[in-house]
Formats: sequence, structure tokens, C-alpha cells
Amino acid sequence: MASSERCLAKGSSAPGPVPKGKIRLYSMRFCPFAERARLVLHAKGIKHDTFNINLMDKPDWFLMKNPLGLVPVLEMPGGQVIYESPITCDYLDEVYPEKKLLPADPFEKAQQKMLLEHFSKIAPYFYKIPMMRRDDEDTSKLEEELKEKLIKLNGNLAGKKYFGGDSITMVDYMIWPWFERIEGIGLKHLMDGTPELKNWTECMLEDPSVKASMLNTETFKGFYKTYQDGKPDYDYGL
Amino acid sequence: MASSERCLAKGSSAPGPVPKGKIRLYSMRFCPFAERARLVLHAKGIKHDTFNINLMDKPDWFLMKNPLGLVPVLEMPGGQVIYESPITCDYLDEVYPEKKLLPADPFEKAQQKMLLEHFSKIAPYFYKIPMMRRDDEDTSKLEEELKEKLIKLNGNLAGKKYFGGDSITMVDYMIWPWFERIEGIGLKHLMDGTPELKNWTECMLEDPSVKASMLNTETFKGFYKTYQDGKPDYDYGL
Repeated sequence: MASSERCLAKGSSAPGPVPKGKIRLYSMRFCPFAERARLVLHAKGIKHDTFNINLMDKPDWFLMKNPLGLVPVLEMPGGQVIYESPITCDYLDEVYPEKKLLPADPFEKAQQKMLLEHFSKIAPYFYKIPMMRRDDEDTSKLEEELKEKLIKLNGNLAGKKYFGGDSITMVDYMIWPWFERIEGIGLKHLMDGTPELKNWTECMLEDPSVKASMLNTETFKGFYKTYQDGKPDYDYGL
Repeated sequence: MASSERCLAKGSSAPGPVPKGKIRLYSMRFCPFAERARLVLHAKGIKHDTFNINLMDKPDWFLMKNPLGLVPVLEMPGGQVIYESPITCDYLDEVYPEKKLLPADPFEKAQQKMLLEHFSKIAPYFYKIPMMRRDDEDTSKLEEELKEKLIKLNGNLAGKKYFGGDSITMVDYMIWPWFERIEGIGLKHLMDGTPELKNWTECMLEDPSVKASMLNTETFKGFYKTYQDGKPDYDYGL
């Protein structure tokens, strides 16, 4: 088994050791955190295989690798594992010299990390609002909060094409997966007051790694319905 | 004003620019997150001044520097600011070459980051349990959970003196401030099943930077009482 696009569930056999010269990604096709690692692997042209995990019914061997049970997880030929999306991405950028994604300048790097910290307080809204809508709850307060936060995020793009400047860098890939999904989860109207952010999404859509990593909106919507219904079909569209 | 140990509150004058060749720390004497930066500044012998902030009544000029309103914050002579304790510490370690605290090996560095991620789920117990006790709530469940987590943390020290190996490294300083306070907040008994962790705290207490940065337990207890009463005296003991 060289790779498995279909997700592996409890009771499945563990994949064999990682081949020499490769790195392995444990992922889930629709997970925004795992997509961060997929974007970085693609952007840097890193040879890897991918095994998707059924996150509702996790294999025991997967929980042995990451006790937190989350994707992405990287595994090396020696069996070492790395998890937590920013840690996996920083590791890949440090070890593979092609196309450095983190700025070399320590202050610029710190700025990207601070922006990511701010963004970590935005991302949960992309989960909460759709879930409240599903339950017919009033989302107007949360939508207003998210709108405010997106306006602040927009401010970080003043005079810049990407969050790190004129070219795409790590922080863009870290933030992108949520904006890829913003239409599919019905929150695109909250970007009406954020022209720079809109322009950024258009630039991102032209990036080869974004193109290679993203799912079309209809497939995502189909999966998302199963997810909201509490029975996620991780193989949706295959 | 070259430094201010007494905390600065709303209405105070903003300190002037950071002198050339120095870096500035905005801190609070009893804050474990700020102590991380203090430990790193000391361990690396970095020339700095320190201004303590009244976190219950923050100066407007401080909120301009860090909109999140938290310490630690670093400020450079050019006015650039960095906040979030792990980001400040990584920055200091990268920019100041003396005594590197993060491992040079990318996998070891990733391991430290993963351990820190695990620890970020332990630290909140050090806040919650004492607060529940103050309110005469039953803390037995949370204490049991914390005990379990400390046993797992203890496992990370198997065969090692420090979390990174034979010598003190970044992750030790990141975790230490909570263990410095464990007696003061009345949770030391939860370390009964963690002999390696106990040994680690004893080793840490011998470290010159820990010695220079820590407050004695009585002073901490005095402050902590005012904190639990909702009227923190940040200048307690001065």
C-alpha cells in the first residue's frame, strides 16, 4: 500500500515503514489543518506518500503515532513522528532547503508567528457559525464579531499583495485553508468590507500549490453536509 | 525612567525609546508567561530594561504596543514589538547567539514544540484548581486529571535530567514557571507519583537563571492571595 486516498479506519492495517528518501503525511482530505502541510509539501516539492485517516473512527496504530489523534502527522523513514500543523510546516521548511517559506529575518518570522496567533482566534468562527446555523440559532452576533476580525486581518495586507510582502510565504499557506472554505460554509458575504483580503484570495487561487491542494467547492459542500449531519463521509467524491 | 519595578497603570507616562544596544521587556513580576522571557534574557545574558505593567488597569500606550494586552512584550530600539511568550523566547534565541537554548537539530526542535503543545493543556489546571478551591468547589476530578497529566509529563523525563537531555534547554524554561508556583498554589502533592519531575525541579532550582528570576514562595503566596481576592497587588513585596 503506497498511499491511501480512501480513509483508514479502526481495524485497518497499519501502513508499512516509510520508504527511504520519502516522508509520509497522515491527513484527511477536507481538514484545513492538514491542508497546511499539504500546501507546504507541494510548494517545496517534497516527495511524500499520503494516508488519509477516518477521524471519527481512528485506527489504534494512528493513535499510537499521535496521542492527540489529530491530523496532520508527518512520519519519517526512521519512524519519528511530528504533529501539530505549524510544527510540521516549520519542520518541513527547515529540513528541505528548496523554496524557503519562512522569512530568514528573525523579526519578520516573529511577525508571521504573531499574525498566526491572531488568526488562531479567527479560525474557530469558521466552525462555530455554520454549526449554530445548522441548529437554527441566531448567528448575527458572531457574524458581526467575525466581520470585525476580518477587517483587522485585512489591515495586515495594507500595501501588500501577500501577508509577508510581495511573494507568497508560510503565513499565507497557514491562513489560506479557511478562506478556501469560506464560500462552501456560507460566510463569503463577511468579506464585503475587506478588499485587500479579497484580492489576496484571488492571488492565492493562482498559486500552483493552492491549485494542486484544493478541492472544488461543490465536493467540499457535499462533504460538509455529511459533516454537519454528524456522519462525515471522508471519502465523499472519490 | 530607566526601568520600573513598580507596575505602570493607566494614566502613567509611556517610557521613552529603548536605548541603543538594549532590548526592553514589558513584564509583570508574578506572571509565569513573562517569566519565560525573563529566564531566557538572563540565561543568554542579554542587556535589557524592564517595565512592569498593571494588568488590571493597563496603560493605553501599552495596549497600543500589544492589542492583546498581555505580557511579555519585547520592544526594540527601532520601536518594533514582539509578544506571545514562545515567540519572544524563540526570537531572543535566534538573534542573540550566546548560549543557544533551542536544539540545532530540526527534529529535536519539533519535539520540544510538541511537548510545549502538550504542556499548554496542562498549564490551565494551575489556574482553575486554585480558583475552584477559593469558591469552595469540589476539585477532586480536576486534581485527578492533572495528576494523570503530570505522570505523562514525567514520562518525558525517562532517562533524562532535563526535558531536552543532559543540559537545560528552551523547553525547560518554558515549563518551569508553573512548577516554581506549584507549592505556592497548593498543588505540590500532585507530584507524589512523578519522581523524575521532582528531580527535575530540584535541578532547575540550581540553575543560575532560575535563581535570578524566581520570587520566594512567601512573596508569591502573599501576591496570590490578593489575586484570588480579585484585587491583585502587582507591587506586593516591593
